[in-house]
Amino acid sequence: MIEGLPDQYRWAARLDPPELAAASSFLVCGMGGSGISGDFAAVVGADAGIDVRVHKDYGLPAWAGAVRPLVIAASYSGNTAETLSAVEAARRLDLDIAVVSTGGELAGIAEDNAYPSITVPPGLQPRAALGYLVGAALQILTGAGALSDPAQALLESANATESLLGSGEPGAGRDRAGSIATALEGRVPIIWGSAGPSAVAAQRWAKQINENAKLPAYYSTMPEIDHNELVGWGSAPAEVSRSAGIVILRDKGETAEISRRFDLTVELLRDQAPFVGEVWSSGESALARAATAALMGDLVSVLLAEVAGVDPVQVDIITQLKNRL
Amino acid sequence: MIEGLPDQYRWAARLDPPELAAASSFLVCGMGGSGISGDFAAVVGADAGIDVRVHKDYGLPAWAGAVRPLVIAASYSGNTAETLSAVEAARRLDLDIAVVSTGGELAGIAEDNAYPSITVPPGLQPRAALGYLVGAALQILTGAGALSDPAQALLESANATESLLGSGEPGAGRDRAGSIATALEGRVPIIWGSAGPSAVAAQRWAKQINENAKLPAYYSTMPEIDHNELVGWGSAPAEVSRSAGIVILRDKGETAEISRRFDLTVELLRDQAPFVGEVWSSGESALARAATAALMGDLVSVLLAEVAGVDPVQVDIITQLKNRL
Repeated sequence: MIEGLPDQYRWAARLDPPELAAASSFLVCGMGGSGISGDFAAVVGADAGIDVRVHKDYGLPAWAGAVRPLVIAASYSGNTAETLSAVEAARRLDLDIAVVSTGGELAGIAEDNAYPSITVPPGLQPRAALGYLVGAALQILTGAGALSDPAQALLESANATESLLGSGEPGAGRDRAGSIATALEGRVPIIWGSAGPSAVAAQRWAKQINENAKLPAYYSTMPEIDHNELVGWGSAPAEVSRSAGIVILRDKGETAEISRRFDLTVELLRDQAPFVGEVWSSGESALARAATAALMGDLVSVLLAEVAGVDPVQVDIITQLKNRL
Repeated sequence: MIEGLPDQYRWAARLDPPELAAASSFLVCGMGGSGISGDFAAVVGADAGIDVRVHKDYGLPAWAGAVRPLVIAASYSGNTAETLSAVEAARRLDLDIAVVSTGGELAGIAEDNAYPSITVPPGLQPRAALGYLVGAALQILTGAGALSDPAQALLESANATESLLGSGEPGAGRDRAGSIATALEGRVPIIWGSAGPSAVAAQRWAKQINENAKLPAYYSTMPEIDHNELVGWGSAPAEVSRSAGIVILRDKGETAEISRRFDLTVELLRDQAPFVGEVWSSGESALARAATAALMGDLVSVLLAEVAGVDPVQVDIITQLKNRL
């Protein structure tokens, strides 16, 4: 589920950007493992000063008609109900549309309407295709003239994630993930990030723990944490605070203010709070930092699944739900 | 802390919108109780097709230079470090700036630079001034020509929240809040919303529980919940699922797809999950629906504080942190 990720970033680095009308505003529409690829693209876009937003619902936000973004419909299966509904809404508004999928109904719509599209390799769980999906979204931003060639950041992400995984041998990342997973056992994981790369990685951690380890998990970001959530963890009764484990995603790109807040916050929580662990991103580009911080969560989620004796691949309850919707 | 809220909406309904250059894109910069007023304004804006975003960090997002939104700096104290830093960044980019505060450094900057500003009544905790802060933000959107007169929605919100509180007598809202608070006792509250009004209300619940009841609390939104979080709650071991209580904020404006998802999700969780309760919004406008759903969380948070024997007003740990930053 994780081993193939570095090669996915390499695959995306070799893609040709599709030809698109120039755009300066982007809205990625997608859910779950496909939708979070939009959050990664938004981090890279934000780092480059580009306006990329993500919509995780049916239809489109009401401002879409006024802002007129290029809509990037991302659905790994190509059959996600919410994403198909977003494309239908975008068609009614006559917005430009680009597509990322493995096929399905979405690919058919793209073909019928000659929407620019990128077909990613099939056969994976959407959440295991992050490198393909992020890379494809970045190539679409590039095709629309908003981003310069993303190949370098994609290759850096490939190498940095590969280095964490270790080539055949257990890498440093696995050891660290193992100790974090042990500490989180039997707790609700709470993941704290800050801006950009660590915020999207925190989101990825929580969702990978949900789906792979079948556990609840939540995320939030600094400095907002210091304006409310801190109070909860600083004073919670022991039976509540024992129930959770906090993991802080530190990013080498974080500002001095944020570093200081994290250090002081950990100090203030020391006596009272549950487990508080830290994981640092590596790499230089925003993408590599997000990718490495996120990969650590992927590893932790699979280790938590092992400990709990659950299958990281199956998500039966989502299948049950889809069948009944 | 809550009783004055209806009159705050009435106060805001009587405000004259400040005179501003026309704008079509808005960025509210603020933290904690001030920042969430931006989220409320964004919900009202989205409902009207207006592009309103919220920034909860130092500085500005990197796309601000390209999009050039009107920056609304909201800080109840007027001295929030992150918000002052956002104003400084907006000045460097020569963006239009409007201010909401009770005074402080921010009011001084507004006066020195002749920024349009609204001064709200002082003497409250920022989170207890939600009606003032939301109303002021909406009047700024109106002054910039993006929103038509918000007085009707503000008055509806005043009446709807007053009706929940009951006039002198315990209202229906208090009874319902009491039963929810009892069910949440000793658990980590997890609040689920969907789009717009219920999403912002879910956020408000979590943060009010943090600050008033000194408990951790988290929120997330449907339909994304069904793509990942559901797996965690559907299969979590009993010792984990017992630790949490889920409250679903239902909104009379939610679509048929979302209603169906909530109903099916609750059914799927019935045997396995922790407490799952529902709270419905009331009122017609997006603002009144957000305000009523949020008020129920305010009530629950204060009741949870009573049960735990903690003072809802004090947030000592934030004061400690600020003194050391």
